[in-house]
Amino acid sequence: MNVLILGAAGMIGRKIAQRLAAESRIAGQSLETLTLVDVVEPGRPEGFDGEITTEAVDLSAPGVAERLVGQRPDIILHLAAIVSGEAEVDFDKGYRVNLDAMRALLEAIRSLPDYCPRFVFASSLAVFGPPFPARIPDDFVPRPATSYGTQKLMCELLLTDYSRKGFVDGVSLRLPTICIRPGAPNRAASGFFSGILREPLAGLPAVLPVPDSTRHYFASPRAAANFFLHAAGIDTASLGQRRALIMPGLSATVADEIAALDRVAGPEAVALIRREPDQLVAGIVAGWAEDYEATHARELGFEAEADMDAIIRVHLEDETGAAS
Amino acid sequence: MNVLILGAAGMIGRKIAQRLAAESRIAGQSLETLTLVDVVEPGRPEGFDGEITTEAVDLSAPGVAERLVGQRPDIILHLAAIVSGEAEVDFDKGYRVNLDAMRALLEAIRSLPDYCPRFVFASSLAVFGPPFPARIPDDFVPRPATSYGTQKLMCELLLTDYSRKGFVDGVSLRLPTICIRPGAPNRAASGFFSGILREPLAGLPAVLPVPDSTRHYFASPRAAANFFLHAAGIDTASLGQRRALIMPGLSATVADEIAALDRVAGPEAVALIRREPDQLVAGIVAGWAEDYEATHARELGFEAEADMDAIIRVHLEDETGAAS
Repeated sequence: MNVLILGAAGMIGRKIAQRLAAESRIAGQSLETLTLVDVVEPGRPEGFDGEITTEAVDLSAPGVAERLVGQRPDIILHLAAIVSGEAEVDFDKGYRVNLDAMRALLEAIRSLPDYCPRFVFASSLAVFGPPFPARIPDDFVPRPATSYGTQKLMCELLLTDYSRKGFVDGVSLRLPTICIRPGAPNRAASGFFSGILREPLAGLPAVLPVPDSTRHYFASPRAAANFFLHAAGIDTASLGQRRALIMPGLSATVADEIAALDRVAGPEAVALIRREPDQLVAGIVAGWAEDYEATHARELGFEAEADMDAIIRVHLEDETGAAS
Repeated sequence: MNVLILGAAGMIGRKIAQRLAAESRIAGQSLETLTLVDVVEPGRPEGFDGEITTEAVDLSAPGVAERLVGQRPDIILHLAAIVSGEAEVDFDKGYRVNLDAMRALLEAIRSLPDYCPRFVFASSLAVFGPPFPARIPDDFVPRPATSYGTQKLMCELLLTDYSRKGFVDGVSLRLPTICIRPGAPNRAASGFFSGILREPLAGLPAVLPVPDSTRHYFASPRAAANFFLHAAGIDTASLGQRRALIMPGLSATVADEIAALDRVAGPEAVALIRREPDQLVAGIVAGWAEDYEATHARELGFEAEADMDAIIRVHLEDETGAAS
């Protein structure tokens, strides 16, 4: 199989590339070539005997989608995007990168005869907007509250229509909030959900801006990478028009996070969390969804962590090299 | 008020133009100018003292949206589209006219400072796909089964996002099947719903290809024109992200149609209907929705006919000049 990853320098794209390089298999078949593309040069994963190509390029620039798709990869994993905050501030850039680049990719695929690759698209639960029920069913109406969510939903619709017409074989994955995000603290409003675990696990202080009762919906970086690798191999014949799937996740409160941290790393780790209520952050987070049923995706074999202890273990194993 | 109608040569566009010209008012204010645009030259309605401009132009051609919007109309009614069957056959043309032209219009509006027109978009119940419940609630998930439905839904999403950002003040109207369609029989699969009334009312034979129990969802051409004129004046502040509205309609069976025809025009009219079962047409129609709640739109004051007798009366009054 020849695999193209778009957005391969991102946090999940890197994980997928590392897993593919290590396993040399995808969708039940052997991996032949791996092409890694992002706006910055992606790292080159180790452990793969086949051909790896890395390239830094703006996917939304003229001709780029055509050239990349022209290699006829069997599987395309598309994770390249402008994030939510930036798409809200830079309206033009958001539509250009998040929507127009997708359409250019799909048009490039459609233009090639006898070619119908599996296309796995990184969508988002941001396709949904408030008000939310306590637990969101698969058939909840997508009503995005941001330009980012609008763009992701429009891409899902394009992918489903191009798939219905037989031009491509697409699946859209609506991803939960990733926890524990590796790396340095960032300024995203959701950053504390990872920070209150990641920083204390490394012996560093962390700030908690919301009440302990705050509930949200998580999957680990490893689970997210698994979603893409699983989606690359599922039988899509049964999906019909239901090609946009809510991914499974763990619904947990901040209190659940802290209790798990206590069990895994002890009270001295918990003591590194400093409560600094921030009304702005608390207000933003209060508008977010708390839980999803994700029934269809679970039936299709997608899996996420069952508790916060597992999410912490994944972080220790994958990011710090610690044994479980 | 300065009003621009796109798709003004179409069946509903013509009705709206005639109504506006006759009433010289829209959204509670006096009408100053009326600009009528379509791919063929729209007719010039009578009875209006103000300025009427008509123009034949391809809305999807470069620069056209910018030029039309550059006149800064206060209200834009956008009904121009490639119909469902053609969008299915000509994939490029469907996306170009039904999606790209909408985006060009919205971009042209956004580019003008201190300008935020009311924009009423002709969407369709084709944003929904099967399987359907017997009566479809407002919160039924749109899952289009055609490229046309996909394009209409993407336009709704764009209009809602541009409205959220304050670039435009948009409302999308998901229109029922129009009955009784005036004019000659056409080859649309839904054509018989109008034909079995329109033709016998004119003393002509009509073919019925489906069982009498077949149920569908209708509004008259007059009701459809009313939807646009009403939408031009509603208070959109309460809509939030719910700017795509299922329009009210009448859920009725073929038997209901025939019973109403009997009451209005007598058994000699009913005798002109010839039953010629057509498995292909019956199969297509069996996949269509039978009824919608349209609760939100009714609360907002949108109204459709309450029975088939009223739909026939509207046809006689508006198309044949007969008294009710």
